[in-house]
Amino acid sequence: MTEKLCIIGTGLIGCSLAAALKQAGFDGHIVGNARHRRTLDIAVSRGYLDSADTDPARCVDGADMVMLTVPMLAMPVVLEQIAPHLGPDTVITDGGSVKGRYIRQAREILTNLSNFVPGHPIAGREKSGVDAADAALFRNRKVLLTPVEASSRRAVQAVTDLWQMTGAEVEVMDPATHDRVLAATSHLPHMLAYSLVDYLATRHEHEDIFRYAAGGFRDFTRIASSDPTMWRDVCLTNRDEISLAMQGLIDNMSQLKLLVDDLDGDALFELFAKARDARDRHTGEPGVSDRPSQESGT
Amino acid sequence: MTEKLCIIGTGLIGCSLAAALKQAGFDGHIVGNARHRRTLDIAVSRGYLDSADTDPARCVDGADMVMLTVPMLAMPVVLEQIAPHLGPDTVITDGGSVKGRYIRQAREILTNLSNFVPGHPIAGREKSGVDAADAALFRNRKVLLTPVEASSRRAVQAVTDLWQMTGAEVEVMDPATHDRVLAATSHLPHMLAYSLVDYLATRHEHEDIFRYAAGGFRDFTRIASSDPTMWRDVCLTNRDEISLAMQGLIDNMSQLKLLVDDLDGDALFELFAKARDARDRHTGEPGVSDRPSQESGT
Repeated sequence: MTEKLCIIGTGLIGCSLAAALKQAGFDGHIVGNARHRRTLDIAVSRGYLDSADTDPARCVDGADMVMLTVPMLAMPVVLEQIAPHLGPDTVITDGGSVKGRYIRQAREILTNLSNFVPGHPIAGREKSGVDAADAALFRNRKVLLTPVEASSRRAVQAVTDLWQMTGAEVEVMDPATHDRVLAATSHLPHMLAYSLVDYLATRHEHEDIFRYAAGGFRDFTRIASSDPTMWRDVCLTNRDEISLAMQGLIDNMSQLKLLVDDLDGDALFELFAKARDARDRHTGEPGVSDRPSQESGT
Repeated sequence: MTEKLCIIGTGLIGCSLAAALKQAGFDGHIVGNARHRRTLDIAVSRGYLDSADTDPARCVDGADMVMLTVPMLAMPVVLEQIAPHLGPDTVITDGGSVKGRYIRQAREILTNLSNFVPGHPIAGREKSGVDAADAALFRNRKVLLTPVEASSRRAVQAVTDLWQMTGAEVEVMDPATHDRVLAATSHLPHMLAYSLVDYLATRHEHEDIFRYAAGGFRDFTRIASSDPTMWRDVCLTNRDEISLAMQGLIDNMSQLKLLVDDLDGDALFELFAKARDARDRHTGEPGVSDRPSQESGT
């Protein structure tokens, strides 16, 4: 059992994890680290954290487990800072969105990888920060662990146990598959949403465009309200997979545009029907949602 | 006051309109037309329609107002069929997603345009058909009317009154602006969602991709479950504006991909922050949604 958990980064993921553990009856000590004292004070005052420290090195002292929940570029920086202060059995895990590059960096920084268990909860919001924390954020969500060869069974089990307390379903995946799959399901849609909003905002009639955009458009672009620092870091650390996915989508859209240009009704129908069927089959949502999507019928 | 309303097409829009009017206490007669008797029987049995007829020409007989809610390619076909049977004062309106081409066609078909008031409710769902009907579909939604020069004030007022009974907010817009703005806010996001699902479905690891796609991805692609016939017709009738918008987005995405390829963190941050701010400013949703968007934090 983890008796002292140190969470580095007290944003949405870090605070939601702490809140979920507290709610689930976790009886260990949770200490949090962030750069700003004010964030830590809020997290403590709300009962997410038992204690807090702005110094990461001090914060990990005596911890059974350290959970890094900072943006991807900050991960190796923090790891360098805390490495000399980790105990011989301290499990090191994280909630980062990109795994491959971080694991390569960790191999350089950590002398012993047996306690190292990278992870990623497939959960989030377009809101960020301590104010967005939600004890239910991980319930029925997947958490993907991407252990390395050296990761010990004990360490993997400890991280699994921790996430299961939050109601999440833990699965193991290899880092390269993780980065490829997440580039497609998460990183690419974010790029698309940012790009769509950016494009529309630069159009001459952008006031009308946003004025007459109804609920479906809001849903579609909601993820464009996500944290720019986090997404910059995701791009910089999963470049190759994101670039590949973006090029694939650009090619697909260019083909679709050709069908539109050619007024090829049969091919358009076929593509739309195929896409609808694929989505309905895979999501188990055969076009039956209770939520109106204002764009759809328009 | 409209005493006899004829609705041609008893899908989502037609049946939702009928349901909304009945709920609002509309005391006229509503007659519906569709190709299939079964759909009409359902619409009558649910109380949406007072009567039904599979023959559009018979259906418009004695109607004060005719509302066309069929896919865009069927609009001029139906108009040809009913034109000889319209009374001298019968108002002709519709709920079609594209206005310019249809208006040009109507000019060829109708000898008198004073009763002609094209319209478009900015409301819909990815579900279609009579089973998706919802009396609340148009509540607080915009309905855009695009009258022609010859449209009489009386006819515009009658259509406005009808839609206002459903709780909608009616605005007048010129057809070209309508088609340009809707291409951006509605047609483009649908193309994008269809293209994204089509692209992901063709990827080697598509089983994993759909398996690890969480709620945010579902939201983002929900509109890809929309009716293929309707969207084929929208593409075929608003080609130029859709093609322009698609090219604009393809160019924007290609630029964004270059920033990713170049690892240009500053430019990526700037673009993401600008897009987030534009969306939050225009939607009045400063990143504060109660609904978790599973992709965002991942």
